[in-house]
Amino acid sequence: MYRTHNCGELRLSHLGQTVTLSGWVQRTRDFGAMSFIDLRDRYGITQLSFNAETNPELLSKARELGREFVVQVSGQVVERSSKNTQIPTGEIEIAVAEVTVLNAAKTPPFTIEDQTDGGDELRMKYRYLDIRRKPVRDNLLLRNRVSLAVRNYLSEQGFAEVETPFLIKSTPEGARDFVVPSRMNPGEFYALPQSPQTFKQLLMVGGMDKYYQIVKCFRDEDLRADRQPEFTQIDCEMAFVEQEDILQTFEGLLKHLLKSIRNVEVANFPRMTYDHAMRTYGNDKPDIRFGMSFVELNAIVQNKGFVVFDAAELVVGIRVAGAANYTRKQLDALTDFVKRPQVGASGLVWVKYNEDGTIKSSVDKFYSDEDRAAIAAAFGAAPNDLMLILAGSANKTRKALSELRMHLGNALGLRKPDEFAPLWVVDFPLLEWDEDASRWFAMHHPFTAPKPEDLHLMADNLGAVRANAYDLVLNGSEIGGGSIRIHNRELQRQLFEILGFTEEEAQAQFGFLMNAFEYGAPPHGGIAFGFDRLVAILGGHETIRDYIAFPKNNAGRDVMIDAPANIDSAQLDELQLRVVPVQQKQ
Amino acid sequence: MYRTHNCGELRLSHLGQTVTLSGWVQRTRDFGAMSFIDLRDRYGITQLSFNAETNPELLSKARELGREFVVQVSGQVVERSSKNTQIPTGEIEIAVAEVTVLNAAKTPPFTIEDQTDGGDELRMKYRYLDIRRKPVRDNLLLRNRVSLAVRNYLSEQGFAEVETPFLIKSTPEGARDFVVPSRMNPGEFYALPQSPQTFKQLLMVGGMDKYYQIVKCFRDEDLRADRQPEFTQIDCEMAFVEQEDILQTFEGLLKHLLKSIRNVEVANFPRMTYDHAMRTYGNDKPDIRFGMSFVELNAIVQNKGFVVFDAAELVVGIRVAGAANYTRKQLDALTDFVKRPQVGASGLVWVKYNEDGTIKSSVDKFYSDEDRAAIAAAFGAAPNDLMLILAGSANKTRKALSELRMHLGNALGLRKPDEFAPLWVVDFPLLEWDEDASRWFAMHHPFTAPKPEDLHLMADNLGAVRANAYDLVLNGSEIGGGSIRIHNRELQRQLFEILGFTEEEAQAQFGFLMNAFEYGAPPHGGIAFGFDRLVAILGGHETIRDYIAFPKNNAGRDVMIDAPANIDSAQLDELQLRVVPVQQKQ
Repeated sequence: MYRTHNCGELRLSHLGQTVTLSGWVQRTRDFGAMSFIDLRDRYGITQLSFNAETNPELLSKARELGREFVVQVSGQVVERSSKNTQIPTGEIEIAVAEVTVLNAAKTPPFTIEDQTDGGDELRMKYRYLDIRRKPVRDNLLLRNRVSLAVRNYLSEQGFAEVETPFLIKSTPEGARDFVVPSRMNPGEFYALPQSPQTFKQLLMVGGMDKYYQIVKCFRDEDLRADRQPEFTQIDCEMAFVEQEDILQTFEGLLKHLLKSIRNVEVANFPRMTYDHAMRTYGNDKPDIRFGMSFVELNAIVQNKGFVVFDAAELVVGIRVAGAANYTRKQLDALTDFVKRPQVGASGLVWVKYNEDGTIKSSVDKFYSDEDRAAIAAAFGAAPNDLMLILAGSANKTRKALSELRMHLGNALGLRKPDEFAPLWVVDFPLLEWDEDASRWFAMHHPFTAPKPEDLHLMADNLGAVRANAYDLVLNGSEIGGGSIRIHNRELQRQLFEILGFTEEEAQAQFGFLMNAFEYGAPPHGGIAFGFDRLVAILGGHETIRDYIAFPKNNAGRDVMIDAPANIDSAQLDELQLRVVPVQQKQ
Repeated sequence: MYRTHNCGELRLSHLGQTVTLSGWVQRTRDFGAMSFIDLRDRYGITQLSFNAETNPELLSKARELGREFVVQVSGQVVERSSKNTQIPTGEIEIAVAEVTVLNAAKTPPFTIEDQTDGGDELRMKYRYLDIRRKPVRDNLLLRNRVSLAVRNYLSEQGFAEVETPFLIKSTPEGARDFVVPSRMNPGEFYALPQSPQTFKQLLMVGGMDKYYQIVKCFRDEDLRADRQPEFTQIDCEMAFVEQEDILQTFEGLLKHLLKSIRNVEVANFPRMTYDHAMRTYGNDKPDIRFGMSFVELNAIVQNKGFVVFDAAELVVGIRVAGAANYTRKQLDALTDFVKRPQVGASGLVWVKYNEDGTIKSSVDKFYSDEDRAAIAAAFGAAPNDLMLILAGSANKTRKALSELRMHLGNALGLRKPDEFAPLWVVDFPLLEWDEDASRWFAMHHPFTAPKPEDLHLMADNLGAVRANAYDLVLNGSEIGGGSIRIHNRELQRQLFEILGFTEEEAQAQFGFLMNAFEYGAPPHGGIAFGFDRLVAILGGHETIRDYIAFPKNNAGRDVMIDAPANIDSAQLDELQLRVVPVQQKQ
């Protein structure tokens, strides 16, 4: 037996016991007649003591142990003379009587400490060493706790976890699939699921009633920062439900997680229409931990001679409380921020409500004292407030102001990681028009049901049709999204037609689902949560990579195992495939 | 709201309540002035009643409802005049006041009943209808219960579930990988994991201490009956453990499952060496629910003039209690069975211990009364017992006799589905020699550690080296297998060398693991359970397909969605791949 206890459990109550521990050498401290070693495992750190008087040979053996050596020690639990109140085992130490080196270790390429000296690439290459660091280990253990809490909660609510297949069929709608060549059916391919969408709908047709699954999904997208080609979803579906049933059920889930994981109680979640979110925050996933909601100013500021505002479809601003003392330099930096190509505004107008009651702006020559007072009143501004205003086409300006709002939220520390502000965004449009492709796309996916009260708009006002779709937003991130699904074959056929599918294409790709709708499909709907993101936010972070054991880098590579990689030509032959590099463009 | 209750929960205690139910029309029974409908959902069946006197219109509407129509009904809970004691809701019915058809249904291609008239292929094509049948639904719900029980048990034991990646690297050792072309790295491929083996070992190097995962794995094998290209494993690994720790931990898991799922208590699991299992049952996964252990007879039956026995490396038999009255026809059938090519024996010798005390055999001319008495004594036979004997080369004969033993176990009803007999098989050989490939193969996998006491045999007696490997056998199926792993770089290098890897190959494929062993790898080991099989056995069956929501057929096809399938040539172009059909042989 390698150990009687782990490195996190010994206390004063164990005094006098002879114990055996195994773990890693975290650090060694040598004094003349004594040495101390911090021995580490997943559960904690226990101090080992070696004494020249009682056992000089053992002391010199201890002094040969390098960082990250794996050792087994036996000895007596004794009270420390100088206690460490920072750790649960800090009142005791082990007076070591015996040491066995279980494995030696080369000096690790970076320090195994909470704050490491290793850069990102190095830590990814040696991810197994990175995982030894407490912050990374704690993230993975948090993920484990969250997944267990999700499963037990949903199980108590009557949901059954059902595994859906990974080797499915490629469909061109939506993002790009990863495909898997079939050796037994040469020339044919499976695809890895982007989500179990159609299967969970079939489970509803099959009467499973309440389904969930915590499941890997795959998307072959050009990777942006903090996107992974494989990611994990909490995928859920319910039969015989309306939107309200789903909102209630999953509001319950998130409340449970916030309570059980973070000990945070939140009131009933506010709800906001997509339209309202876009007009008030320029964003369909607003962070409502802080204010700075949008104030539209067209009626007040137009036709006063300032051509930029006069020509704009929308003039809109936010109020930054207590920021009237911003310096020229700070305001210039904000102007630079909004003019960055990613944000795309052409300029920034500021209005300061000074402490002395005067109101000054960067466009004073166009606006009178009264005008400026009217602007301040529109914002509900008080002395010391700063107002920041953008103008231009409506969508673009809202997006840019949203970026500015989030930038200020971060800069001013208003996005507190231990504060949780969930929000339902509802009433999404069913469709969005894509100018480039010159066709309608499903805003959610092609299986989303229109709102019954908007069905009459399907004939001639497609853009106005709202969907029974909803997103769950937490702290400015969309953590979940779903919809009531179509369960009627004819309506589904009509949607595919609107999305540009021919009858044949719709039948070839989704015939199994449309056929299923003819054999007694119940009304149903569901939701899927981005599990990586949810865990990250519950952990107080926004970087999902920190919460994935073996993440891929932004080029989709696993730099630790060096994948993807070439495969044997024999493997390619068996698959009847050949790699044909595309000609370089001349 | 679609329902106030589900179809399985109403009782006499609900009498008088007005309720709303939704579900499927299971069957309709029409009488003159009354109609009854059984309404079904996941939770049960509730009887609906329609009465010509109270509502003739509703009655005629009810009579138009076909099988599998989806309906919503409201009405009062009333006591049935003729009660059904077979179902929990059998004392009440709903006097329906209102019916809404939520969806019509075409007549299903097979009956949605416990015993259906649908064949295998048809039920697979319409799997969403098959899942509506109670036996299939119950199997999936059992699977859900087992997975939750596994997770909660392992979690209580300190195991953390950690997700390992699906897009990894192909390695030629072992079974064939499914590969996934990388668009972002043209010409390179990911592979889908056959198991998370190397990742779970890296998690041990990373200090996660106790890991588990219920996870999909993939193997591109030529499919035998009841094999799936994607299957689910309970994958587990522990650090600082010896074999005994692992056997204790997972014996605890299976005991917990048998108790919580089947309410069966089993004593401590017996253990048997691989060697003993092969000699006593001809099988490394013996079903010990019944006896018929092998009796070796060389010493008794050789050199008596029967050339078949004299020439045999091994003469071995089993005793079938109470079968001495088998007819000539029955014995001929057994002879035919063992002579089938899959079994491969050349003949069968029988010895009958008759009720009158006489002992007769099919080879009486070679053996005296005394010889036959000695044979019977070797078997410990009593009057009425039948003894069946095979002879030939040792391995082949044991295998054939094992087939005969299992055949008789099935035929005599000795393999009772509600009886559970777990067994540890231990001390597997580390390596097996493959005559065709003329090289050693790892019996378990290349990461399995030799027994320390056998290390001295590594130099010159490889075939005799036993591994610290173990299988958990339940009712004649291997449900789990694992080993203590190598955690020493040099020993791992040596193993790869024995297995025919060059240094370069070993480094290219498993360099990351061998490097990890140099940075403080702890002793570790683990086990993996075939989850599909485990659930099937707990459910009292052996066919895993019945316990998978959307299984593939024996050609690896999903006949419901029709996958695999052709993909767009544009997709192939993006992947820089071309399908090159192999030339037909002339």
